[in-house]
Amino acid sequence: MTSQGTATLAEIARQAGVSAPTVSKVLNGRAHVAPATREKIEVLLRDHGYRRKRGAARARPSGLLELVFHELISLWATEIIRGAENVARQEGLTLVLSESAGREEMGLSWVDGVLTRDPAGVILIMSDLTAEQRELLTGRDVPFVVMDPAGYPADDVPSIGTTNWQGGYSATRHLLELGHRRIGVICGPADVLCSRARIDGYRAALETGGVVCDDVLVRHGTFQTDAGHRIARELLAMPDRPTALFAGNDVQAMGVYQAARELGLRIPEDLSVVGFDDLPISGWMGPPLTTVRQPLVDMAEAAARLVLDLGRNVRPAMPRVEMATTLVVRASTAAPGK
Amino acid sequence: MTSQGTATLAEIARQAGVSAPTVSKVLNGRAHVAPATREKIEVLLRDHGYRRKRGAARARPSGLLELVFHELISLWATEIIRGAENVARQEGLTLVLSESAGREEMGLSWVDGVLTRDPAGVILIMSDLTAEQRELLTGRDVPFVVMDPAGYPADDVPSIGTTNWQGGYSATRHLLELGHRRIGVICGPADVLCSRARIDGYRAALETGGVVCDDVLVRHGTFQTDAGHRIARELLAMPDRPTALFAGNDVQAMGVYQAARELGLRIPEDLSVVGFDDLPISGWMGPPLTTVRQPLVDMAEAAARLVLDLGRNVRPAMPRVEMATTLVVRASTAAPGK
Repeated sequence: MTSQGTATLAEIARQAGVSAPTVSKVLNGRAHVAPATREKIEVLLRDHGYRRKRGAARARPSGLLELVFHELISLWATEIIRGAENVARQEGLTLVLSESAGREEMGLSWVDGVLTRDPAGVILIMSDLTAEQRELLTGRDVPFVVMDPAGYPADDVPSIGTTNWQGGYSATRHLLELGHRRIGVICGPADVLCSRARIDGYRAALETGGVVCDDVLVRHGTFQTDAGHRIARELLAMPDRPTALFAGNDVQAMGVYQAARELGLRIPEDLSVVGFDDLPISGWMGPPLTTVRQPLVDMAEAAARLVLDLGRNVRPAMPRVEMATTLVVRASTAAPGK
Repeated sequence: MTSQGTATLAEIARQAGVSAPTVSKVLNGRAHVAPATREKIEVLLRDHGYRRKRGAARARPSGLLELVFHELISLWATEIIRGAENVARQEGLTLVLSESAGREEMGLSWVDGVLTRDPAGVILIMSDLTAEQRELLTGRDVPFVVMDPAGYPADDVPSIGTTNWQGGYSATRHLLELGHRRIGVICGPADVLCSRARIDGYRAALETGGVVCDDVLVRHGTFQTDAGHRIARELLAMPDRPTALFAGNDVQAMGVYQAARELGLRIPEDLSVVGFDDLPISGWMGPPLTTVRQPLVDMAEAAARLVLDLGRNVRPAMPRVEMATTLVVRASTAAPGK
């Protein structure tokens, strides 16, 4: 097979109009091959009966469990690290952190790094995986799971998420039940799907409650404190200002608190606020924040277990899971002021 | 050399009353040898002219930079991770996180893990290194640095810290200059040296300002929010309550804020509060927190650069550095209420 294979690789290289090492790269699932070239070579390899070795559970000497963040490091990243570390400790693995964003800016592909480290599994957090990247990981039998509290990954990618729509619905429902009718919502960026889902939940609750959604109360910004602060200032400066704000996350809600303090509005007497995430700080805000809890530590544990199962060829009962959000009512919400 | 060496190892094993593999472990810098046994073998190895290979800068295929936390993961851990990641990205290295505490509870030594991974460098955060652990790392040419915002490591260990005494002094000086005379201090655990240094700075400032230190106002607790909350409740319930509190860190200060809210005390009108760290959240607290900034991101970057220099046999200009704290005055401090 070896000599026959070698001859055929050269032949494939000739047919594809590339060098033999390039064919070898594609065969071995390595990076740095242009997508069009890769595709042409893949077809030729298949035609000649080449198949990548896969399926066999192999021992990985590295003992690494890799977390890939798009950008380090938000407050919720620490919850995810905590959950993944819980599983790594139990399994005798070591946690590796990498950033996909910064690395790509440098012209390096994070996938190359992953393939070199050959981890027991990769958990991608809010990182979009291109078809080529997916193919590279699959070709080298590196199992991966997308843990995406903020999006909805492609159908055939194993993933752990949370019930964003339900969270948006229950937060808004809670405010309606308190008697609020003008409820503003601060979202994440418009192209982040979790944000879409939360707003759709918000709209559904308003509609169910017989309240017409006023689009001027729906604003987008980054998931940072300063965006929460800026948008809250805008919304609260309106003549017919909202009596309640549903922030995209707890970190934005801190900015809403700041805006309320600057404007002399008391929470919850003059303004009700609901967050999203239930980070440890939310219970210590002044007043303690009512928020939609997404179980980030549990989600990260589930993602770690799922990816390790995949690496052992254990077929998961549920390769795509949304873990439930729960509304945690604290002291930042009340009936609208008299 | 090989056969002669083998014979001598067996001879050394006989003299030490142990097996040859145990001698080999010691020679190769591996763990799981009792300290007394190790010492006996070390002496015999030296007597027989054995020397561990060291000194030559060697290529480390792993490309890992390892951060060892005693316990993951506080809010300030995220700042340290951010700094280390900045350097890792520039150097094309990947960040590994490990916990020394949890691993030891399981009867596994984190040093074994480090030796297996063979990282380019190890940064220990608030982790005490035993003489044996230090010997193991040195024996295998794994460079290490202690980054310790909370302690004072042994004299011959390269370390990056911060000016804790100076920080405690300037926080207290600030409160004295505002006119406060009864200033309470919430510290970390009594056995954590950074806490001692900060309190000594506090005492020095009082003395310089001609104020007698009242030991009833000096309290110890964990570096967590609930400890800050509990101790502030105790101090503020005193008949002659303090008009200002210097918290051990920003996270404790959040608990002080909560206690003040519960007691109906306004910050800063009724109570001034100073924190320590200057975490990103401190500027968003209500009111924004006056705090002693320790440059955690810069410290982690300096620690990473130092350990990589050590690995390249670059002799550092300053192997032990304390980076300066600075007082950041925001809205939580004012003259004591009339």
